[in-house]
Amino acid sequence: MSLRVVFLGTSGSVPTLKRSLPSVVVQCSREQLMFDCGENVQRQMMQAKVSFHRKMIVLITHLHGDHVLGLPGLLQTMALMDRKEPVQIYGPAGLKDFLICTKETLNFGLTFPVEIFEIISEGVVCDEEEYRIITTKTNHAVESYAFAFVERPRPGKFYPKKALARGVVAGELWSKLQHGEEIKLPNDTVVRPSDVMGPTRSGRKIVYTGDTKPFESFASFAHGADLIIHDCTFDDALTEKAAVDGHSTPSQAASQAKAAHAKQLVLSHISARYPNANLLLDQARKVFPNSILAEDFMELELPLSE
Amino acid sequence: MSLRVVFLGTSGSVPTLKRSLPSVVVQCSREQLMFDCGENVQRQMMQAKVSFHRKMIVLITHLHGDHVLGLPGLLQTMALMDRKEPVQIYGPAGLKDFLICTKETLNFGLTFPVEIFEIISEGVVCDEEEYRIITTKTNHAVESYAFAFVERPRPGKFYPKKALARGVVAGELWSKLQHGEEIKLPNDTVVRPSDVMGPTRSGRKIVYTGDTKPFESFASFAHGADLIIHDCTFDDALTEKAAVDGHSTPSQAASQAKAAHAKQLVLSHISARYPNANLLLDQARKVFPNSILAEDFMELELPLSE
Repeated sequence: MSLRVVFLGTSGSVPTLKRSLPSVVVQCSREQLMFDCGENVQRQMMQAKVSFHRKMIVLITHLHGDHVLGLPGLLQTMALMDRKEPVQIYGPAGLKDFLICTKETLNFGLTFPVEIFEIISEGVVCDEEEYRIITTKTNHAVESYAFAFVERPRPGKFYPKKALARGVVAGELWSKLQHGEEIKLPNDTVVRPSDVMGPTRSGRKIVYTGDTKPFESFASFAHGADLIIHDCTFDDALTEKAAVDGHSTPSQAASQAKAAHAKQLVLSHISARYPNANLLLDQARKVFPNSILAEDFMELELPLSE
Repeated sequence: MSLRVVFLGTSGSVPTLKRSLPSVVVQCSREQLMFDCGENVQRQMMQAKVSFHRKMIVLITHLHGDHVLGLPGLLQTMALMDRKEPVQIYGPAGLKDFLICTKETLNFGLTFPVEIFEIISEGVVCDEEEYRIITTKTNHAVESYAFAFVERPRPGKFYPKKALARGVVAGELWSKLQHGEEIKLPNDTVVRPSDVMGPTRSGRKIVYTGDTKPFESFASFAHGADLIIHDCTFDDALTEKAAVDGHSTPSQAASQAKAAHAKQLVLSHISARYPNANLLLDQARKVFPNSILAEDFMELELPLSE
């Protein structure tokens, strides 16, 4: 499947003219996942041409306003657009209260089901055909979760020549082998998928930290990620402030990516104090060279691994 | 005092790329009034250079999400900016519940007092030194209020020649007369303000309707307004839909302005179905020629009346 990551909001706490409040969308097949849902997400979606109608799962890292205040307006707008498809929302305890109280005090109707799931433990939070979402607690000022999008492993490469050599002609039998079934030929020979295919290929992995200072178990949680989108609120000179507020600096984010043996790091949740955040990028690259700086409307295409 | 009207959001219900959700700021002297507070108001304020620290009164017409979902984020951002000055918020019953429940579920702290006043009757809602805010119920789907900003009448023009002719020399005595006091000269002559000043000059008046279909008593409520900012959600061809949804068309908004003997009409709360809203303007101008179309970041300066 194709896998596109769209950055809708990349500031932390307070928006700026250049950066809206946190939200990242991962588009895969015919559905999309939204990580955090900051205020103004609707207009950011419009500008980035992110669909209001697709199958959608929203994952909220924590209940600070900058990460969640876009939700009521988004749901309301979806209803005004006559959405029918359900929206599933995962987040910490309290999420349900927040959504119910805004819905009740503002008295808005919905045209589609909203399914709210409060996270009660670490591990798999949703288990879809093509991927799973796994969560772990982070180290922030309030209960907060990081999420890993983990694509299921794909079958190995199919070698038509090997199939033909074993007398399997193109057509339905090839498809069965590609889908993991062993087949029996008219002459009773059994052909197994492993006879005509390469080794299973690992799926892609994207980790979204939300707000956090560094924590020990992150390396194993994010191990081998193709992409880590990491809190990078303050520069290295403000390491103490970052610790107090439960945030990370560039060197810390980069060390986490390095420890996890990630392929690429994106620094996000940038404080409004950096109109130009190149300083953050420079500090990260000293530790983890394949770092980039998140920008609103930046899009990354994650190629299939071979 | 100077009087500047800044349009921060001019769409209705759903934002567009061109129009953010409803909010209008009136800046006068060292304070500002905000009428409605749609989602994303913070970034609109930043772009329009509207202060986050000035003395501020927020007036919410009704509790539909598009008019109020900018408030929690705005208050939170003001706190992060270390605002000290109180914010007063007026709006319909339920406003307090909405603000308390978002503040509690999102657990954010404030650095300044927020004073919430729920409107319980029509009439004067706030009474300041230089102006009053008067409210009236509108005709919308839910309890909704229009607001009139009414500047206090200014003293008449002072004529120095008349003062000198009566033997009043420039200085403190002139100031007393200008401030409405009568004075006694050393020769026991009494000079009254009306002896040396022209007739009282009326203050300026701005009316903000919020969402409404036309209603009978509007003409007297808005009588003589310098500016009416009126709901104009749908074009005249959708008059029936407008009636069902509790909104106005251009002809209706223009008729209201005409009946009120207003000086100027601004059409706002434009439906997302009009990427180009000139049609609305044409329809309004047939009834009330001095109509203009609200645009995000449009600013109007209201000159002192003579």
